Amino acid sequence: MTEPVFDVAHLGHIEIYTDKFDESLDFFTRVYGLKLSTLGGDSAYLRAWDDYERHSLKLTRNHTTGVGHIGYRVSSEAALERRVAAIKASGYEVLGWTDGDLGHGRAFRFVDPFGHVFEIYWDTVKYEPAPDDRPALKNMASRFHAQGACPRRLDHVNLLAEDVTEFRDFMQTCLGSRVTEQIRLDNGRLGGCWFTVNNKTYDLACTEEHGRGNGRLHHVTYATDQREDILRAADIFLENCVHIETGPHKHAIQGTFFLYVWEPAGNRVELANAGARMILQPDWKTVTWTETERKKGQAWGLKTIETFHTHGTPPMKGEA
Amino acid sequence: MTEPVFDVAHLGHIEIYTDKFDESLDFFTRVYGLKLSTLGGDSAYLRAWDDYERHSLKLTRNHTTGVGHIGYRVSSEAALERRVAAIKASGYEVLGWTDGDLGHGRAFRFVDPFGHVFEIYWDTVKYEPAPDDRPALKNMASRFHAQGACPRRLDHVNLLAEDVTEFRDFMQTCLGSRVTEQIRLDNGRLGGCWFTVNNKTYDLACTEEHGRGNGRLHHVTYATDQREDILRAADIFLENCVHIETGPHKHAIQGTFFLYVWEPAGNRVELANAGARMILQPDWKTVTWTETERKKGQAWGLKTIETFHTHGTPPMKGEA
Amino acid sequence: MTEPVFDVAHLGHIEIYTDKFDESLDFFTRVYGLKLSTLGGDSAYLRAWDDYERHSLKLTRNHTTGVGHIGYRVSSEAALERRVAAIKASGYEVLGWTDGDLGHGRAFRFVDPFGHVFEIYWDTVKYEPAPDDRPALKNMASRFHAQGACPRRLDHVNLLAEDVTEFRDFMQTCLGSRVTEQIRLDNGRLGGCWFTVNNKTYDLACTEEHGRGNGRLHHVTYATDQREDILRAADIFLENCVHIETGPHKHAIQGTFFLYVWEPAGNRVELANAGARMILQPDWKTVTWTETERKKGQAWGLKTIETFHTHGTPPMKGEA
Amino acid sequence: MTEPVFDVAHLGHIEIYTDKFDESLDFFTRVYGLKLSTLGGDSAYLRAWDDYERHSLKLTRNHTTGVGHIGYRVSSEAALERRVAAIKASGYEVLGWTDGDLGHGRAFRFVDPFGHVFEIYWDTVKYEPAPDDRPALKNMASRFHAQGACPRRLDHVNLLAEDVTEFRDFMQTCLGSRVTEQIRLDNGRLGGCWFTVNNKTYDLACTEEHGRGNGRLHHVTYATDQREDILRAADIFLENCVHIETGPHKHAIQGTFFLYVWEPAGNRVELANAGARMILQPDWKTVTWTETERKKGQAWGLKTIETFHTHGTPPMKGEA
Repeated sequence: MTEPVFDVAHLGHIEIYTDKFDESLDFFTRVYGLKLSTLGGDSAYLRAWDDYERHSLKLTRNHTTGVGHIGYRVSSEAALERRVAAIKASGYEVLGWTDGDLGHGRAFRFVDPFGHVFEIYWDTVKYEPAPDDRPALKNMASRFHAQGACPRRLDHVNLLAEDVTEFRDFMQTCLGSRVTEQIRLDNGRLGGCWFTVNNKTYDLACTEEHGRGNGRLHHVTYATDQREDILRAADIFLENCVHIETGPHKHAIQGTFFLYVWEPAGNRVELANAGARMILQPDWKTVTWTETERKKGQAWGLKTIETFHTHGTPPMKGEA
Repeated sequence: MTEPVFDVAHLGHIEIYTDKFDESLDFFTRVYGLKLSTLGGDSAYLRAWDDYERHSLKLTRNHTTGVGHIGYRVSSEAALERRVAAIKASGYEVLGWTDGDLGHGRAFRFVDPFGHVFEIYWDTVKYEPAPDDRPALKNMASRFHAQGACPRRLDHVNLLAEDVTEFRDFMQTCLGSRVTEQIRLDNGRLGGCWFTVNNKTYDLACTEEHGRGNGRLHHVTYATDQREDILRAADIFLENCVHIETGPHKHAIQGTFFLYVWEPAGNRVELANAGARMILQPDWKTVTWTETERKKGQAWGLKTIETFHTHGTPPMKGEA
Repeated sequence: MTEPVFDVAHLGHIEIYTDKFDESLDFFTRVYGLKLSTLGGDSAYLRAWDDYERHSLKLTRNHTTGVGHIGYRVSSEAALERRVAAIKASGYEVLGWTDGDLGHGRAFRFVDPFGHVFEIYWDTVKYEPAPDDRPALKNMASRFHAQGACPRRLDHVNLLAEDVTEFRDFMQTCLGSRVTEQIRLDNGRLGGCWFTVNNKTYDLACTEEHGRGNGRLHHVTYATDQREDILRAADIFLENCVHIETGPHKHAIQGTFFLYVWEPAGNRVELANAGARMILQPDWKTVTWTETERKKGQAWGLKTIETFHTHGTPPMKGEA
Repeated sequence: MTEPVFDVAHLGHIEIYTDKFDESLDFFTRVYGLKLSTLGGDSAYLRAWDDYERHSLKLTRNHTTGVGHIGYRVSSEAALERRVAAIKASGYEVLGWTDGDLGHGRAFRFVDPFGHVFEIYWDTVKYEPAPDDRPALKNMASRFHAQGACPRRLDHVNLLAEDVTEFRDFMQTCLGSRVTEQIRLDNGRLGGCWFTVNNKTYDLACTEEHGRGNGRLHHVTYATDQREDILRAADIFLENCVHIETGPHKHAIQGTFFLYVWEPAGNRVELANAGARMILQPDWKTVTWTETERKKGQAWGLKTIETFHTHGTPPMKGEA
């Protein structure tokens, strides 16, 4: 194993498309509990109360659903240059530099083999709370507003790809991501891979696309401080007629406590809690789960619900 | 700000001295809930159930109490060489290479200006659970045995130093640690510094020594998955006649939920939960607390108990 | 021991006076998380989301603070008659029948020897949620609105009396209350008594008035489903500049997990969680705590804060 | 509605049969976390740490599984006489007086129409902890030993009957139980009834027997203080190879947070937490759930697992 690469600091933001913009925005602010930083053009820029950047979720009005792009922040200007050089040399599709967005400076865009758009950037706009959003404790990014499910920070995104092995190569080459856990199917293919660029257990997961979809999203996740926050959120979702797909329960993979719902436009959204688990070990050996092991269900035996294998956004042709 | 240094991966282990070895060992295994890896010579090698190394706590029989040494694991063999070169060039006291210990390979030892012994190492002995200690889920380092308070992993150590600024220079120079939060007293001195080498909010803290002690320990901390684990632990400590010093409560600094007790020999031991808080931001700006802000007490107003400012191990002359 | 008396069903509501009506109402609805049933005249009628009656807290504009009256609901019309007969025969001061209030029918009022006004009633107005307040689950009294601390139901009230023994006689005679726990001071006096009319561990407490106050209130308490709700509430109070007096911590007496704050007008308000503890035992023997035992502090050693012994409402002459 | 009857104080104990006595005893003590009061003859007498009687679970060696008998404690000697008279007059099968058991005095036995044996008693043996089992806080029945899942007290039992309406009549006539919630099937039959004799939301449930079993047990339940205790218990069951049937999740009916496992002999055992919910309302109106409402699944949408409808003990002929 080679030395870890630390050029990429962390997952920064996700852009999500919605064809029910107003309903989605109401969900993400009032029910899910993110804060609105800016409403501009066709997009709402949202953040969890302890996200330090201007936004971690960009919600964009569109004719369909799914993921717009995935942004990672790098560790320094020099790291940005190193990464851009590596990506250019990789042979993967490159879209090149953008001028940035409301929340950050220039970004370099590139595309994975399944159509998901990524960007990396260094310059960012750190969130400066207005007086009425200043936290009681100065080490918090903004006020704990206790609205809705009220997660603390962006956690991870889960994408779908027809060939997870190919996706894995992309992540290692372009971002220097480590694979912390994976599923090896009986047919030899990878069923799923969990990646991280830092000490989080994962910041991006990729699972096998069982349809013919292209560049689809499985889900976006924010982290709560406690498991109890997720149990409480389940009641909030219930009272607000949000479709609860599965959970609260505990994943066998990564040991994450989870709850999955569908926001009004159909994008799957998760709340998760990893407890005190982190990947501090520099020479972590990827944990590989077999198909047989997966068939045991989640940590406490819950069988994975069928829609979890099939539903993604945008929906595939013929899917409701 | 310069680019972050990632040579040092994480805090690996702490050696604690006890003059009541049997009582301390009973406390750390039965009540605090660590697992005994090896009992050898004058030391017991202990680990939390999800610590991946052979030990994270070395409990050593001695005529007194306090900290024996603090071990950090580096990110690679090359990183070890880089760090050793930096330390040698630093002018700080160097003890040189040891052959290692039961739990790890060769280590390079050096000393901070206040007498605490540090070591860095790369080769380690990863814990391989015996059949009866194999976890149900293969991504856990060993079985969740649910004994006592049962924390998940080593979290941090808090040392005492007469000059925190001088200590800070040592940490930055030798380990490349970042200062995530600090206390600036009205007299201009640093009252405390919280350091990290990775994405944890802190792995080592240093607070001002108010006595004439040398190389003293303030406390050692393990992390629990949930705050509820700490509330439950408080009942366990109560039933086992352990001296509960303060907590459960929430620190204003770092926002950690905490509980402090004294193990039978008098060393202060903490259980802590950081929720989902991590320092992912590569250009994190140190949070500085003033003396006035500190006087407000902990997060929810609890005034800091007097012994927290005075008690350390070994005790100073004249201290009970 | 005689057979238990079950004429009185449960504590029904408390009337609280405030000389900062608007601020108090904002606190109780937005921050503490009660729901407003009716705003009428000089009073706001409030309830927790699972309180089945029209109100459990009547907040009344006044020139001072403290408790207006305490209402208990009886088990039947016949029980009401039995209780009224017993109270009339008791010699305690009787105010007689009132026509009732917005939330209930006719009530019989009487006064304890220290000036607190009590009433008992049978006819009540059960809360019927409007369409937008209908819960997702039909066995809940109204929608879980997740606003602020959002407790589930009224729990208990704590009054102050110069002679707790005399107060105890009153409670046993008039309401058939049982004493579940008490404090016996070294001087032979009762320092405090915890009463219940049903299987709750207590619905009313009386502690010794250390000043010359008359008919004063120590605090009013609502129950949360989990201890985590109280930890979360502490953050909410902190962010809303509410004075947190003490907690979260666990009482040695009754084992209740607690948090005390002062609402804007100065009335002390608690959030509490009793876990699964109930007094199911029909021949429960009163638990008596000695002064020495009390001096050990709360369950985990926290020393009781001085204001907890002195602050009550209305304030005594000369008190700020 | 007539006045509530309070002759019966609470569910006292359940006798469970096991054909794997040693394995069951190991489960109930080491894993589930009850304490052994006495091991005598073919029975082990067990209690949760805060159960005040000598035992709340009698585990009896037998050639099969299921429930031996269900014991309720009454409120007084006079109440015992009143109940015995009512039962004798009822026409239900009467077995008459027994001399009592290790844990209580004389008991009056009678049988429901489906073969379950009940008993009521007044004289009981209150648990007196030996020195090493004395709690730190004198208001607890014994030491919080923190072993295994470690529930606080007995909560309820769930029986199976071919005609729930007939069973309901039995409970109301013999014990004066109130029906707090029930399921009304589309065919007009009762699918289930939840009963209580006090302020608990329920102490006994009866659900429709879908097979030809006679006098079968669905499950026995103990209460935990917090929901987190149940999440933690799930990990303990997982590590101890206990069959987790379903949960943790939240029932729509009664709102109970639950986890169901099968002890080694196959009897279903639950851990449950009701939060702060109690039935304090003397004129509580039975909540009736329709078949359609039940088909929505549990509170957060979980579909009820098939075995939950079919598995009971003892198994029916032909059942594994």
